[in-house]
Amino acid sequence: MTEQKNAISPRRDEDFPEWYQQVVRAADMAENSDVRGCMVIKPWGYGIWEAMQRTLDRMFKATGHRNAYFPLFIPLSYLAKEAAHVEGFAKECAVVTHHRLESDGAGGLRPAPSAQLTEPLIVRPTSETIIGATYAKWVQSWRDLPILINQWANVVRWEMRPRIFLRTAEFLWQEGHTAHETEAEAIAETEKMLEVYATFAREFLAIPVFPGEKSESERFPGAVRTLTIEAMVQDRKAIQAGTSHFLGQNFAKASGIQFLSRQNVQEHAWTTSWGVSTRLIGTAIMAHADDDGMIVPPRIAPAHVVILPITPKPDSRDAVLAAAASLAETLRAQSFAGDPICVEVDNRDIPGGTRNWDWIKRGIPVRIEIGPRDLEKGTAALSRRDQGRDKLFLPFAEVAAQLPGILQSIQEALYQRALTYRDAHTRAIDSREEFYAFFTPLNAERPEIHGGFARAHWCGAAECEAGVKEDLKVTIRCIPFDAEAESGSCVICGRPSGKRVLWAKSY
Amino acid sequence: MTEQKNAISPRRDEDFPEWYQQVVRAADMAENSDVRGCMVIKPWGYGIWEAMQRTLDRMFKATGHRNAYFPLFIPLSYLAKEAAHVEGFAKECAVVTHHRLESDGAGGLRPAPSAQLTEPLIVRPTSETIIGATYAKWVQSWRDLPILINQWANVVRWEMRPRIFLRTAEFLWQEGHTAHETEAEAIAETEKMLEVYATFAREFLAIPVFPGEKSESERFPGAVRTLTIEAMVQDRKAIQAGTSHFLGQNFAKASGIQFLSRQNVQEHAWTTSWGVSTRLIGTAIMAHADDDGMIVPPRIAPAHVVILPITPKPDSRDAVLAAAASLAETLRAQSFAGDPICVEVDNRDIPGGTRNWDWIKRGIPVRIEIGPRDLEKGTAALSRRDQGRDKLFLPFAEVAAQLPGILQSIQEALYQRALTYRDAHTRAIDSREEFYAFFTPLNAERPEIHGGFARAHWCGAAECEAGVKEDLKVTIRCIPFDAEAESGSCVICGRPSGKRVLWAKSY
Repeated sequence: MTEQKNAISPRRDEDFPEWYQQVVRAADMAENSDVRGCMVIKPWGYGIWEAMQRTLDRMFKATGHRNAYFPLFIPLSYLAKEAAHVEGFAKECAVVTHHRLESDGAGGLRPAPSAQLTEPLIVRPTSETIIGATYAKWVQSWRDLPILINQWANVVRWEMRPRIFLRTAEFLWQEGHTAHETEAEAIAETEKMLEVYATFAREFLAIPVFPGEKSESERFPGAVRTLTIEAMVQDRKAIQAGTSHFLGQNFAKASGIQFLSRQNVQEHAWTTSWGVSTRLIGTAIMAHADDDGMIVPPRIAPAHVVILPITPKPDSRDAVLAAAASLAETLRAQSFAGDPICVEVDNRDIPGGTRNWDWIKRGIPVRIEIGPRDLEKGTAALSRRDQGRDKLFLPFAEVAAQLPGILQSIQEALYQRALTYRDAHTRAIDSREEFYAFFTPLNAERPEIHGGFARAHWCGAAECEAGVKEDLKVTIRCIPFDAEAESGSCVICGRPSGKRVLWAKSY
Repeated sequence: MTEQKNAISPRRDEDFPEWYQQVVRAADMAENSDVRGCMVIKPWGYGIWEAMQRTLDRMFKATGHRNAYFPLFIPLSYLAKEAAHVEGFAKECAVVTHHRLESDGAGGLRPAPSAQLTEPLIVRPTSETIIGATYAKWVQSWRDLPILINQWANVVRWEMRPRIFLRTAEFLWQEGHTAHETEAEAIAETEKMLEVYATFAREFLAIPVFPGEKSESERFPGAVRTLTIEAMVQDRKAIQAGTSHFLGQNFAKASGIQFLSRQNVQEHAWTTSWGVSTRLIGTAIMAHADDDGMIVPPRIAPAHVVILPITPKPDSRDAVLAAAASLAETLRAQSFAGDPICVEVDNRDIPGGTRNWDWIKRGIPVRIEIGPRDLEKGTAALSRRDQGRDKLFLPFAEVAAQLPGILQSIQEALYQRALTYRDAHTRAIDSREEFYAFFTPLNAERPEIHGGFARAHWCGAAECEAGVKEDLKVTIRCIPFDAEAESGSCVICGRPSGKRVLWAKSY
């Protein structure tokens, strides 16, 4: 018996961080560019982002939002307006200081000293300040509220230790920015958008999440409340998959968003912001990929099916290619989850095994091989990416009818697998000793192997959080919305606590 | 008799440039931001861009292209690689020199001297160089070609005299970048994409265009051939609405895009690039808007119809609102040009006249008013934005059936109107005297009023172009593809010429 070989080396259980890099590469999703920390998102990776965008955009519009676009650059002085915000964001930014180049006299170019900007510009790390300054002009009366706007954009946060999709200097995202008449309305908006993200994560990314609220030390700089959805990936670490911030009147005061109320009183608006980014692509990889490469959940797949014609002999080649093309047309007329099924036909003039493995590594949900023998038998050999290497032989005429159900079954299986994994590695912990043991790596050379998520009591003190962060690199990921009132003692200091919070190592 | 008042002041014939600014403002499409030259695209303007994107994206995919994403930043040294390119683009760029801010000790911030970049980064003015460097890594053999990729992105070109949508420091665009095995294939691609743009302009923007080739002096920096579509707007000037460049092997040589050919020889690839931008929004305004504001062609409209309930009396209010909501649902079930009809219902608590004028100024194709008297009669009052102020009273039950046809009729009428205007102001000119008279403003205070487009012979010499540009600010917009072979003499110098070219003042 020979051991079955995997496409990705190392395997997840050998070296998770390196496995991740190799999956991104093997799946042909993205690569590092020559510009430090900036990635090139290749068509297969960008196609996943487009599928995510399409769905999120529909969900945002269905909840009353419209898209707009604000400047890439923020005047330096704007960043300084909100004290907590500048503290959190001002540090690592791309700073534009000149607006012209000139010859350096040695065949190269240099920034022209005569074209230095009076006030430097910052490439937006997030747009609260520039959008706030704009809303201040738009809002005069309560009749101008609410403002419900989303922006799809690129942002830049200089990163010292970039990691493709997860932490890059430039990334793509959406940022919702809303302004409201009342505190209650703004809080309801913040909660509603977190619910949109949670639904999207579960139903489209096939990733279970814990929705909840961040503790004060983990809040967005300048926010009054930060809500989050937290997912577990396959090294048992947490990843923050989306956040929604209730900003109170902080940014409205900093930017001067004021309105004449129904009571004829000048008031500051209540604002929110919420966002998800291309980090979700990294999250999906870490949640679903296996030792053969990526597995794309069907509802975010750039293509659902690839047809792989097998043409060993010249005399049957035309018949096989014609059958493949005809099957593709039939499948394209089907729909899955409300959109047409997207079909690739891979006729590339390279060995059949290479073509097959390319699509396994990319994680297309379904592969269908058609060769001369299949034609004779009237069947097609269908492989599900979420299952082993067994093929399902289906009569030609049944493929189209069964495909939507197969895709749905893959979508559900991926969610179920992720849920089972997460639940197996989430534990209620009641003693400090057990807590420390849970998060201590089993093997000093493999710091990523540890217990997972701990549900443990917390007294509410920032010192307890800080100590655990220092000792174990573990933080409170959120105070879950579904945490039941329960008397207990803080797992760190023993003081009384009213509910359990979620602790984990994180990206 | 009272003179009918217009919503926009000044009128087009009084002051075209100022009229344009006022339309942008009145239509609530965009505004200038506090960052010099950068605009805020508001939801109605952005909605038009989204409609354009959706269609163009489909057309690009139908011609075999996929989307990807490349870095915002370009290392300074990359720009210097292609000599002609650097000459054309290196001058006015946003230059990033630092990656961190620090406190300036006086409550403000400054770029941290310790965080100066070794090599400055340029915010992309266009991506040929960074994409070229990437393709050089992707391409080894002829089997890796063609590469057919498009990018939706923001770009920055510092502008000394910004003008909203038409010339802004930051703008949104798409840039296609392809690499091919042969010269013929790359030229065919360049031509195919120009044809996509011409079709899009005619069928979606409702703007007739002259497709053709630029003269050498008007080429994209670094291109071997630049193809363009040129439109006339209502001050009779030309606007370049889309360009497609055949780059030969220039950028492939500069970036090192090489491949092993079918003959086993190392060769440089042949590349193309092509793009359209948010400038198309400005083009559509200048082509279609009137003295009451914007007129959006139905096929690029963010919404096709607005329903305006008229509720003068409290006792009939609920019935009117219910009828409006029910009509909206019925209309949303209809489709126009393959997509669902998009309907707004404007229930805002402001005077009915203000609401109506808001939508006139925005240029929504159709407005439908419903009041208590309409309910009694069972009719709705429909107004077409492309026609005068007469209303069409339609039985309720007929609105849905007639609407798709009405939208199509508006789309065609706008195209026909623009075509008639353009043809009325395009003239074959054969003498230098007539040529100069045609382009000389009729009124010194109104330099925008001149003849329009001239079809005149040109000998091919750059001096003739330069002289006319100097004297009249008139340039060759293109050598039209449909220019017939015809013997003549250059309208400037009298030397022999084989065909007429298109001359105009331009944006």
